[in-house]
Amino acid sequence: MDDAKPLSISRQSLQRMPIYLENLKKLRAAGKSHVSAAFLAGELGLHPVQVRKDLAAVSSVDGNPRIGFALAGLIEDMEDFLGCNNANEAVVVGVGNLGRALLSYKNFAGYGLSIIAGFDSDPAVAGTTVHGKEIFSASRITELCGRFGVHIGIITTPASSAQEVCDAMLLGGIKAIWNFAPLHLNIPDDIIITNENLAASFAALSGRLRQQRDAPKL
Amino acid sequence: MDDAKPLSISRQSLQRMPIYLENLKKLRAAGKSHVSAAFLAGELGLHPVQVRKDLAAVSSVDGNPRIGFALAGLIEDMEDFLGCNNANEAVVVGVGNLGRALLSYKNFAGYGLSIIAGFDSDPAVAGTTVHGKEIFSASRITELCGRFGVHIGIITTPASSAQEVCDAMLLGGIKAIWNFAPLHLNIPDDIIITNENLAASFAALSGRLRQQRDAPKL
Repeated sequence: MDDAKPLSISRQSLQRMPIYLENLKKLRAAGKSHVSAAFLAGELGLHPVQVRKDLAAVSSVDGNPRIGFALAGLIEDMEDFLGCNNANEAVVVGVGNLGRALLSYKNFAGYGLSIIAGFDSDPAVAGTTVHGKEIFSASRITELCGRFGVHIGIITTPASSAQEVCDAMLLGGIKAIWNFAPLHLNIPDDIIITNENLAASFAALSGRLRQQRDAPKL
Repeated sequence: MDDAKPLSISRQSLQRMPIYLENLKKLRAAGKSHVSAAFLAGELGLHPVQVRKDLAAVSSVDGNPRIGFALAGLIEDMEDFLGCNNANEAVVVGVGNLGRALLSYKNFAGYGLSIIAGFDSDPAVAGTTVHGKEIFSASRITELCGRFGVHIGIITTPASSAQEVCDAMLLGGIKAIWNFAPLHLNIPDDIIITNENLAASFAALSGRLRQQRDAPKL
């Protein structure tokens, strides 16, 4: 996101942004390279001054008075603005010991990464905070992933509920899964997944130790 | 360990075992292939009947009445008996959220692995149990690793104390380290190590997501 641009934008403007974005993508798909505020206003039945102001609030460059904005750059700026490109933030579902450990882990910040919230199905856990991060009811995964604009979901639930959690995340717009639950998740091909199998890591270490032990000695 | 052989062995016998083992290894290094109880008794100034009884309690096969025990097999049996070959059990140092998560993790058992105890420097944590496993003071790492006969140590402390913990483990006979602390540990060449860098895993996932996002679209 463009740090130099303050987020002083009206709620009404904000709500128009996804509509602009959808239209800009259609224009790009139709082979256009530039778009003016006046053209977009005509397409959407909005007032040109309003649209010009909205686009100016989001665009990282000024539009060319004659041909308008370069479509590719404007789409990227708008995606950044809407958090569509958010690849640094995650939510974690399953606030047991491992979930808490991740929520409290200090070294993510060094990589520019953060876990911004947690979810748990236990009503006694939902509503609490861990390391300053709010924990929400697991029933709100889809809704809040969408509202937060996060695209990375971490699963630290028992295996029995992991697929259900995964499905709710994907409905909420999650595009990458970091899975600590010991099972294979069924996901579409375009979803990125990292499976973290702690037992397999432990077993590999044990195997290397056994191998060293059984190697010929003097 | 040989499950069929009950551990009905006197404390005195048990204390002689490491002495036998040391001697057996010397004999093997000297090129011998077999050893009799009588010979070993003579070497160590012990009564042959006592030594015969001790070796019979440990050996998985009966000694040949004429040439005694095959040295290689007897050494292996004695190492098994003394837990020298233990590659399935670990201790964890640092009983914060991550340490607790590992102590409570149910899937290690499926691989025949277990974390048998924990250590923590916090006096409020030492003396408690987590998932039925005792938590000891971090000052006892070296002593208890040796007494438990474990060879795998898991480090889930902050980076600032990880090297000190590692050193105490190695003094206690730990041969393989599973390190979750975000730092490079200085260890001898013959020590096996697996570094688990959670931040790097998260960063890699974030990087893949960014790469997918920036890939050419239709």
